[in-house]
Amino acid sequence: MSHNTFGHLFRVTTWGESHGPAIGCVVDGCPPRIALTEADIQPWLDRRRPGQSKYTTQRQEPDEVRILSGTLDGLTTGTPIALEIQNVDQRSRDYGAIAQQFRPGHADLAYEMKYGIRDHRGGGRSSARETASRVAAGAVARRVLGDAVQVRGAMVQMGAHAVDRARWDWDAVGRNPLFCPDPATAEAWEAELAEIRRAGSSVGAVIEIVAEGVPPGLGAPIYAKLDADIAAALMGINAVKGVEIGDGFAAAAMRGEQNADEMRMVDGAVQFCSNHAGGVLGGISTGQAIVARFAVKPTSSILVPRQSVDRAGADVDIMTRGRHDPCVGIRAVPVGEAMVACVLADHLLRQRAQVPDAPGRTRLPRT
Amino acid sequence: MSHNTFGHLFRVTTWGESHGPAIGCVVDGCPPRIALTEADIQPWLDRRRPGQSKYTTQRQEPDEVRILSGTLDGLTTGTPIALEIQNVDQRSRDYGAIAQQFRPGHADLAYEMKYGIRDHRGGGRSSARETASRVAAGAVARRVLGDAVQVRGAMVQMGAHAVDRARWDWDAVGRNPLFCPDPATAEAWEAELAEIRRAGSSVGAVIEIVAEGVPPGLGAPIYAKLDADIAAALMGINAVKGVEIGDGFAAAAMRGEQNADEMRMVDGAVQFCSNHAGGVLGGISTGQAIVARFAVKPTSSILVPRQSVDRAGADVDIMTRGRHDPCVGIRAVPVGEAMVACVLADHLLRQRAQVPDAPGRTRLPRT
Amino acid sequence: MSHNTFGHLFRVTTWGESHGPAIGCVVDGCPPRIALTEADIQPWLDRRRPGQSKYTTQRQEPDEVRILSGTLDGLTTGTPIALEIQNVDQRSRDYGAIAQQFRPGHADLAYEMKYGIRDHRGGGRSSARETASRVAAGAVARRVLGDAVQVRGAMVQMGAHAVDRARWDWDAVGRNPLFCPDPATAEAWEAELAEIRRAGSSVGAVIEIVAEGVPPGLGAPIYAKLDADIAAALMGINAVKGVEIGDGFAAAAMRGEQNADEMRMVDGAVQFCSNHAGGVLGGISTGQAIVARFAVKPTSSILVPRQSVDRAGADVDIMTRGRHDPCVGIRAVPVGEAMVACVLADHLLRQRAQVPDAPGRTRLPRT
Amino acid sequence: MSHNTFGHLFRVTTWGESHGPAIGCVVDGCPPRIALTEADIQPWLDRRRPGQSKYTTQRQEPDEVRILSGTLDGLTTGTPIALEIQNVDQRSRDYGAIAQQFRPGHADLAYEMKYGIRDHRGGGRSSARETASRVAAGAVARRVLGDAVQVRGAMVQMGAHAVDRARWDWDAVGRNPLFCPDPATAEAWEAELAEIRRAGSSVGAVIEIVAEGVPPGLGAPIYAKLDADIAAALMGINAVKGVEIGDGFAAAAMRGEQNADEMRMVDGAVQFCSNHAGGVLGGISTGQAIVARFAVKPTSSILVPRQSVDRAGADVDIMTRGRHDPCVGIRAVPVGEAMVACVLADHLLRQRAQVPDAPGRTRLPRT
Repeated sequence: MSHNTFGHLFRVTTWGESHGPAIGCVVDGCPPRIALTEADIQPWLDRRRPGQSKYTTQRQEPDEVRILSGTLDGLTTGTPIALEIQNVDQRSRDYGAIAQQFRPGHADLAYEMKYGIRDHRGGGRSSARETASRVAAGAVARRVLGDAVQVRGAMVQMGAHAVDRARWDWDAVGRNPLFCPDPATAEAWEAELAEIRRAGSSVGAVIEIVAEGVPPGLGAPIYAKLDADIAAALMGINAVKGVEIGDGFAAAAMRGEQNADEMRMVDGAVQFCSNHAGGVLGGISTGQAIVARFAVKPTSSILVPRQSVDRAGADVDIMTRGRHDPCVGIRAVPVGEAMVACVLADHLLRQRAQVPDAPGRTRLPRT
Repeated sequence: MSHNTFGHLFRVTTWGESHGPAIGCVVDGCPPRIALTEADIQPWLDRRRPGQSKYTTQRQEPDEVRILSGTLDGLTTGTPIALEIQNVDQRSRDYGAIAQQFRPGHADLAYEMKYGIRDHRGGGRSSARETASRVAAGAVARRVLGDAVQVRGAMVQMGAHAVDRARWDWDAVGRNPLFCPDPATAEAWEAELAEIRRAGSSVGAVIEIVAEGVPPGLGAPIYAKLDADIAAALMGINAVKGVEIGDGFAAAAMRGEQNADEMRMVDGAVQFCSNHAGGVLGGISTGQAIVARFAVKPTSSILVPRQSVDRAGADVDIMTRGRHDPCVGIRAVPVGEAMVACVLADHLLRQRAQVPDAPGRTRLPRT
Repeated sequence: MSHNTFGHLFRVTTWGESHGPAIGCVVDGCPPRIALTEADIQPWLDRRRPGQSKYTTQRQEPDEVRILSGTLDGLTTGTPIALEIQNVDQRSRDYGAIAQQFRPGHADLAYEMKYGIRDHRGGGRSSARETASRVAAGAVARRVLGDAVQVRGAMVQMGAHAVDRARWDWDAVGRNPLFCPDPATAEAWEAELAEIRRAGSSVGAVIEIVAEGVPPGLGAPIYAKLDADIAAALMGINAVKGVEIGDGFAAAAMRGEQNADEMRMVDGAVQFCSNHAGGVLGGISTGQAIVARFAVKPTSSILVPRQSVDRAGADVDIMTRGRHDPCVGIRAVPVGEAMVACVLADHLLRQRAQVPDAPGRTRLPRT
Repeated sequence: MSHNTFGHLFRVTTWGESHGPAIGCVVDGCPPRIALTEADIQPWLDRRRPGQSKYTTQRQEPDEVRILSGTLDGLTTGTPIALEIQNVDQRSRDYGAIAQQFRPGHADLAYEMKYGIRDHRGGGRSSARETASRVAAGAVARRVLGDAVQVRGAMVQMGAHAVDRARWDWDAVGRNPLFCPDPATAEAWEAELAEIRRAGSSVGAVIEIVAEGVPPGLGAPIYAKLDADIAAALMGINAVKGVEIGDGFAAAAMRGEQNADEMRMVDGAVQFCSNHAGGVLGGISTGQAIVARFAVKPTSSILVPRQSVDRAGADVDIMTRGRHDPCVGIRAVPVGEAMVACVLADHLLRQRAQVPDAPGRTRLPRT
């Protein structure tokens, strides 16, 4: 994991700024002879696309992906897959003030201190727009994982309000603009979000990603732990401030007898009696569902004036104008899914390399 | 981050199992002409060493580190530094049952499913013993960071009980066996832990690591975000299930106006009015204190019988015997510090490479 | 060095096939605030461009490069620089036979055995066209190295005929289509090449790359040796079969007293009395000119029928039709320069990271 | 390939100086359940060990390897394998002069310019002693490759005299101290070497490594080309100045019709009619024998006075005293074999990851 490249064998390199001519990524290491056309990628980008409801930024981007290399007649060739998305809605406007000021909670000052230069247009490289490339790469990762692996996400908390897990319905996720797995909660959230939007404020969220069908044995014991790589992948999404696996922080408050997942033989196979571990033990997948959550902070672009400074060293008050994203956590759902899919694809290849004859769960027990 | 190597420029490769002849690590990429002898490393190992109080495992290991390469007359030479620690307390005993059974909450089954073989002696590679190598590497990282950077940790929650932050006293951390920054809470925890220990149970914990004096500009915007690398580093410690930066998961419940840290010019320099961000914006350090927390699950080795299975495919009940660690979170404090120090050292070198003339905070504002 | 990414800190990822819509690369890790526009890159691409003389393939490509990200107002921002070159001359024609046959000396069969699929159109990924991306990246590397470092190349042998080094004239290189540093030899080569071309044959070549102004201290002693990375960089160019540094293979025939470069103090600085080492000792640059050579095999696409097999398992005779490149070594000159520039830029950043206060030659001797 | 770590999946990290307490390496990424004990490694180290004939340095080292981790009951576990070799013959003597002077042809000055510090004792990290770690790692790589792959080397040129390939006999290699495949040449070389040794001089050599049984499809088209990685691996050996694959530099002088290897179907399988390519096309193995050669310069430690400078900036004359290695190329044979074995093991795992169902040669042709 270095610079703008992610992954060890299934490697994604992203490039592009919010207001340049295009953004994109190179997906390297993809196995050959996998069916892949733009039609396999576009639906995932469409889910992430802004401007689809009043709860996300009104930037209008078709986000149309184009495969520039790495496929032949609809099949991957094993060579690098270049994906490109044109930037269409680069409103030409006066960035004068933003160029000179550091917005609180944004990366403006950090970029300036690091690089001594900053592409201020729409946030430049730190824009959430970069995540479109990740979603595109995630679509390729899903093809590598195959249909037996399902990576899904949902928003499980908005502001202070969590979903009622007793009413969890995966089908509901696609039927409301907030990726909420519980229709009743979704309605309540929509009402709250409308109020927050009117107030020019914003709110944080928690997203949960669940990966089912993941074979046991992915990950590596020490620095390539599956959960460590998932943690990096999710923490690397814009505005994310926390990541947890399985019971996560709640595990800290537990006793040992509550937390460890017991096992029993059922129909000749090992079955876990619970999944506090979130599908990972010792950094290695167990075959249970991988469950990860991440916390997204409330977007800092709000219509309330905030104290800040400018490049000339003067105190200023800043108020975001124009497009406003009351809950960036919403669009983080497809991004989180994509990152987890990329991590899993990478580790699937790694495991295949080191242990092509891994016993897996199905062949346990052995004598 | 791959396999057993951590870091891009300041690279740590660890090796060794709990019950082999030794454990150790190779620290590569260390700058030359830094004063380094065993005396710079040993004190940090001593802090992590088990058997120092009744609250940690009674395994007795001197954990004496030896520098085998990479220094000359007490100075680093720029070549790989090999650090080695002999395993002394490898009690020879009958591992028969453990070899054949999968302890709930342990990596036993995961290793078996991944590799088809498992070093069952004391947990093998998944033993917490491996973390001694990290602490040793962290001591070298501290020397790279220099005295201006201070990386400290404390246990801030044990079970359900958090410290009272109003009484936070860094000096207190070293004066109680639980690394607790609040003496009153420390006493309460000790009482609770004594009870838990008697009950043969265990409890989880939350550790907080604070790095002060970190120059602004460390990290990189996308996949080498400073917080993403910290997340991976901490999630990669045994038994860790969650990581957060700054306000972390609490940020999800906040409104935008609460969360973003405002700025003001003070004496010609940019000052943040708060530190909800935990010292990282857009994946880049801001010069504020880096604040990270991680959750450690209760150790699974408890004296209460637990349901499991064995390699022959039979249901069994397992009860850990012998050494018992009622709260593995305690010893995780020096390990967490070490991992954060390694991440910072790595990013310090990376930033020096890419932006040797980074403006940093002190030179802002400029005209 | 993995997959399609080259370099550790200054990293180049290339993508694209001969007959896809475009080719390109992502240059990651470039320092910020370096002046860079298309005008800094285009001249180097123009030097490599085919179709400029009768001695290279007649494919006509404008090879116009476009910067899609990573710069602002003509300065690098420190974020990934995406470079893209449209493929224009993708002649639509019947590839039927080539798709089914394996051309001797080409990668056709190797790709098929590796991937089970092959983009046969114009050689796909194995086409020399990919090297345009390298030349573009090399132009960025030159900007990182700065004007004090000069990386130049020349063809020093064509077929069996080497240049007369006594007549070496760097200015001559740009004045003949064969990058020959000796006008008299250039004329002889042109005559020979015209004959080879008429015969439908091809010929090999040796290219020499010289980098002057390289600061001492670049490289690392063991696996990141400067010469090892140069060797990989040059051997990774299409059709290259050998690489040597300094005296290279000739050193094998020497005695110790002939080969080692003696030193003397001249005007207070260390001066080498010769440069048999080619500017590298122990894998580290010494401040002398880096001298590397590589051998390019004769292109396999010739108009003489050759024995081969097809995908159906039948013996066939193959004769290349259409464009014909009698000496691919010619265009390898700018490619070799670019690769050496990339290696040097990478190691410059690496050295700056590990040893920012390297004494270098100028400050030796010290007391 | 970075710093002191070699390989992408099968990764070797070496450490240690000539005169420290020990040297060693960590082999990471090795598949589990491979039989491995010290007895599998020691014979290869014994072949490399100095002091076995009068033609190599008289340093006496048992070079006894010890496995410190990564195996259980004689089987690899998939975790890092730490190998360690004690330094025994660290003659305590006065290094005063060497510490202050820069030996011509050695890395002394380069280290000093790079690091500003240098372990002068026996060459420190730049000592040929480091190659013992590589040979140990190579022994593990051989176990990964399995018995079907055979990696052998021989000295094919000493000074100006090449072997007579018509008399090549692999069995002869082990029967003379110069790894010469032709007994008659071996005798001539021995006579010459005795004379060179008496004269206090030294001589260079060319080594050839041949790997048979390598499956087709190893390597990757661009920067992970099998031949590029082999070139880096061999150029990274001490004193190596050139590397070539197949016909190598001789290919430059050839015509296209001479160089490309024609193919024919024989018994239903593709057969090459020659092997000018050295088993690699487009960076990918073809199933033919991999043939690589590297040139070793004459050792610079000779008994003839040489002009140099010292750290105080004075001109000095240097004459190596003590142990003298008239042809370091001799001991480079097992080292070259080891490096090629490591590259092949790495690429075997990589290919298995990306293309587990690679057709390979045996399944061609297909319909």
